[in-house]
Amino acid sequence: MSGFVSLVGAGPGDPDLLTVRAARALAQADVVFYDALVSPETLAFAPRAQRFSVGKRCGRAAIRQETIHALLIRAARRGKRVVRLKGGDPFVFGRGGEEALALASAGVAFEIVPGLTNAVVAAGLAGIPVTHRGLASAFVVVSGHAESSFRPVLESLVPGVATIVILMGVHARAALAGLLLQRGFPARTPAAILFGASTEAATAWRGDLASLRTAEIPEDADGLPGTIVIGEVVSLADVIAESATPPSAVALSDRQEERRHARG
Amino acid sequence: MSGFVSLVGAGPGDPDLLTVRAARALAQADVVFYDALVSPETLAFAPRAQRFSVGKRCGRAAIRQETIHALLIRAARRGKRVVRLKGGDPFVFGRGGEEALALASAGVAFEIVPGLTNAVVAAGLAGIPVTHRGLASAFVVVSGHAESSFRPVLESLVPGVATIVILMGVHARAALAGLLLQRGFPARTPAAILFGASTEAATAWRGDLASLRTAEIPEDADGLPGTIVIGEVVSLADVIAESATPPSAVALSDRQEERRHARG
Repeated sequence: MSGFVSLVGAGPGDPDLLTVRAARALAQADVVFYDALVSPETLAFAPRAQRFSVGKRCGRAAIRQETIHALLIRAARRGKRVVRLKGGDPFVFGRGGEEALALASAGVAFEIVPGLTNAVVAAGLAGIPVTHRGLASAFVVVSGHAESSFRPVLESLVPGVATIVILMGVHARAALAGLLLQRGFPARTPAAILFGASTEAATAWRGDLASLRTAEIPEDADGLPGTIVIGEVVSLADVIAESATPPSAVALSDRQEERRHARG
Repeated sequence: MSGFVSLVGAGPGDPDLLTVRAARALAQADVVFYDALVSPETLAFAPRAQRFSVGKRCGRAAIRQETIHALLIRAARRGKRVVRLKGGDPFVFGRGGEEALALASAGVAFEIVPGLTNAVVAAGLAGIPVTHRGLASAFVVVSGHAESSFRPVLESLVPGVATIVILMGVHARAALAGLLLQRGFPARTPAAILFGASTEAATAWRGDLASLRTAEIPEDADGLPGTIVIGEVVSLADVIAESATPPSAVALSDRQEERRHARG
């Protein structure tokens, strides 16, 4: 009897944003190996599965990628239905490609179950369309993880031709904004950082490219994943986020207003 | 009594790839206004709703965008639960931003329900990760609808720094490939066109940037939406798509092989 591995995208966090297929894979799973950003509410979709955290977290030793491959392969060879559960989409900065290649090379049957990625929906849930007629007919998604991962793309971009989305880049915001300003992007280009998109803890920072360099991270955003969005489309949140019904959108400006009032 | 509009992304076509929230919005809907690319299987999630097609199709007169706004607003003002159902994600070339602004300006309550977009998952379902360690740490999504929508971005891109995904660009493949070749992209850069991603009719073309210029559209792809993917990551499909279990991935190379044999 041979097992099966589903490489499943859990989406941005809210279990309501799982796909029907992902929910079914979880319900049928014997074993789930999950990443740090997967919520307990999402894991609750797999009530009969053994669940193992294999995620990295700042300050804790990370499980090596090769170890994760070995765990998946071993469980599948024992005949288990295995779910490898990742925040977002398995193929957007999720190392799903590496895991798929490892499974293929071990002859283990697997499937890909895509998930919503913050590359698109962090903005959307905050009332920011990544494309909009007259404002942006393209968008660029980069990882802010290392300078070598974002510099080549951002250096080549002409200002104003695309919305820019940066995942895992909050720590590098000064370098990112500096690079774009140097590249000729107007200092007034609207920018936002969306923290914990789709979760109850969701919050945001709003400003422009100039203020992004020295943006102070809101206290309530501590530890939440942040998605940076840069481009004229960000200004649409003023209307869309304020009018849309929660929890589908973060009322960015409202919250900022509240904070301003709170500070006196 | 006032109604409510949900701007819902239906994903790429397979109803299994709806989100849990989208499925619920459909189940509760009184009225659904849907686009051309939404499948009957997806509409079946809204059994008690009146359903109206407002999509454009080649050769038929399109319903004006302002008319769609008026229909949504009128239905909501009659107290209906309205779903505006779009292929993919409402905010990725979906004109969801325009509809959200129209609803906001009319004072109609609404929410955004994101969906999987072919910008990410057409590739993923075909075994092509848009990002992959060592191959691509960024991806660029453009509309191939008009030259003015893709030329500024593609002209500014340095070869090799990002995976390129083009939606609605099959008709413009000669111009798109020509532009990138002129820009210095190697002729051998792997390329694919993924047709009808996630549906039973899914099929694909595989080649490189040079052959994309004159790519012949497979007969069985006629009328299906096509997503063009260009970059080294496309070569991973050789292993991943062949090993993954359908229906989660199109076994690109197998199909091409079959066709080659069929032609003799």
